[in-house]
Amino acid sequence: MPDLRKDPIVGRWVIVAKSRARRPHDFDTSQRRQRPQFCPFCEGNESKTSGEILAYRDPQSQPNGEGWRVRVIPNKFPALEIEGELNKRGDGIYDMMQGVGAHEVIIESPEHVLSTSELSEEQLREVFWVYRDRLVDLKKDPRLVYGMIFKNVGAAAGASLEHTHSQLIVTPIVPINVREEMTGSLEFFNYRGRCVYCDMIQQELASEKRIVLDTPAFLAFAPFASRFPFETWILPKTHASHFENIQKNEVDELSGVIRQVIGKIEAALDQPAYNYIIHTAPFDTQELGHYHWHIEIMPSLTKTAGFEWGTGFYINPVPPEEAAAFLREVEIREPEDNPSG
Amino acid sequence: MPDLRKDPIVGRWVIVAKSRARRPHDFDTSQRRQRPQFCPFCEGNESKTSGEILAYRDPQSQPNGEGWRVRVIPNKFPALEIEGELNKRGDGIYDMMQGVGAHEVIIESPEHVLSTSELSEEQLREVFWVYRDRLVDLKKDPRLVYGMIFKNVGAAAGASLEHTHSQLIVTPIVPINVREEMTGSLEFFNYRGRCVYCDMIQQELASEKRIVLDTPAFLAFAPFASRFPFETWILPKTHASHFENIQKNEVDELSGVIRQVIGKIEAALDQPAYNYIIHTAPFDTQELGHYHWHIEIMPSLTKTAGFEWGTGFYINPVPPEEAAAFLREVEIREPEDNPSG
Repeated sequence: MPDLRKDPIVGRWVIVAKSRARRPHDFDTSQRRQRPQFCPFCEGNESKTSGEILAYRDPQSQPNGEGWRVRVIPNKFPALEIEGELNKRGDGIYDMMQGVGAHEVIIESPEHVLSTSELSEEQLREVFWVYRDRLVDLKKDPRLVYGMIFKNVGAAAGASLEHTHSQLIVTPIVPINVREEMTGSLEFFNYRGRCVYCDMIQQELASEKRIVLDTPAFLAFAPFASRFPFETWILPKTHASHFENIQKNEVDELSGVIRQVIGKIEAALDQPAYNYIIHTAPFDTQELGHYHWHIEIMPSLTKTAGFEWGTGFYINPVPPEEAAAFLREVEIREPEDNPSG
Repeated sequence: MPDLRKDPIVGRWVIVAKSRARRPHDFDTSQRRQRPQFCPFCEGNESKTSGEILAYRDPQSQPNGEGWRVRVIPNKFPALEIEGELNKRGDGIYDMMQGVGAHEVIIESPEHVLSTSELSEEQLREVFWVYRDRLVDLKKDPRLVYGMIFKNVGAAAGASLEHTHSQLIVTPIVPINVREEMTGSLEFFNYRGRCVYCDMIQQELASEKRIVLDTPAFLAFAPFASRFPFETWILPKTHASHFENIQKNEVDELSGVIRQVIGKIEAALDQPAYNYIIHTAPFDTQELGHYHWHIEIMPSLTKTAGFEWGTGFYINPVPPEEAAAFLREVEIREPEDNPSG
């Protein structure tokens, strides 16, 4: 008998269909990553991209030349554009506004590596600092209210270029999923006087059965109502609503946590496509007692079909307890252990 | 400059990025349908499936034998199961219940055809009658509150078998997306005293620019805030909240409408994978003034990536006005015109 599980934050129900449970190798991960001929994100090809917005680079180097470690550029095909007014208007029953915002690409390494797990902890620390710097900068624009940082790896996860990179989209309205998270966590807070995410950390630490990785400052676990097989969340143990207020000690530790968690997912599932998303509070809020920033990692193993589109229900064939047990045990394949890599 | 467009029903915003607009042939539809070796849905293979729940068949034929025209069977890997109690319970902050419900497969033809467009209007009429009969029957179960009928065609749309079929999943709770539709349309109704879908029909008929097909009883159009390229909705012009109360005259006409609309999408986009979903009111409601049943057809042309998962925003590279203009003009390729088909 399958379970129906309710996400305590947005009220989303998930079907955990145990009888459909499969082992990781049953998933089709055939849309594998391949190295292309020419990569505009590689060091030396800076002239093939738009001018950089920010880069961490050697003091002797020049903007838009070699010598950078992390580099931020405008997206070549932006979903939203930074110039212009919102121009909110109606057309009969329909509402619309101009697509004002920002859409940036964070190139995480000058070398042609394909995944977070191939970066060093030192590189990942700088990636997180770049995320933080861009959010702090874009927050100053009063037209913009939300910054979403996300990463697509592999064609099945929506990546069009394989060189490891993240994206930042900043929107002039709070997206519906974020609003639902805010509303859901506020209802919990008003009713119980506690942060639902803090409660989740307590319960996961007590039960242990969904823990993937437990470090002094972070907990990585398979959420109770995982939408996707091997979905993993990383939460800071100390309550904080805004990612951009992260402490330096946390950045130092987080880089190792994400590298290990993604390394485990890749070892378990043979390098699947995946997404990760940083969930953080809107720009126009101060520190919130009810919201807790976190990272959601979602391997792309299942297809979204008519049922999911219609209902908002997800059918997850792998119970999160089994996924977590598997990920806890799996050994990461370090690049140096893999001479063919 | 892209537009941000708000769906007037659930408040979902969509980015219509005109600068990313592409012609239909730019989409990757390479996950093309292929004919398999053995098909359990073909006439003659009835013993390879579970026993039928309902079939329209010749009076001389036997259940689970040949001689049927449309056949309903339990899903071999059900997301929800019909036996058992809901057993609602909590585990700390988490809520869960048993996955009680129904998950049925409607085999739409005894012959191995792959899409709605390959069925005759007479066959399609019977498919719609089967949908209606199953909803009417399952509504009697007081544990169940919502029935979602949907169809996945092609691997990219989540289909695992290609023989043309639909699915019915009946759930013990109203799914979140349906609840949002109900709430959104009720708010509109309370404020303006009218059905938002009826208003939409009026506005689309007046502007004409998003119409795909206009018949006496139905309007097919590209919705103002289309999430996906070439997304098309079919609405009955006469207000009605429950699909299962459809009039016979409407069934007669709808079969031609869906066949033409899907035929146009297939001709325009070279046989893409697609989903359609019937949106209807929950079982435990009487006729509702604020809700209007309809069919949403969504070709699978774009990948859902980190941004969509995180925000609930969709990035649609084809303005619905362009999609509708294209679909209005395109000629359907009838099977008989295509000797290689």
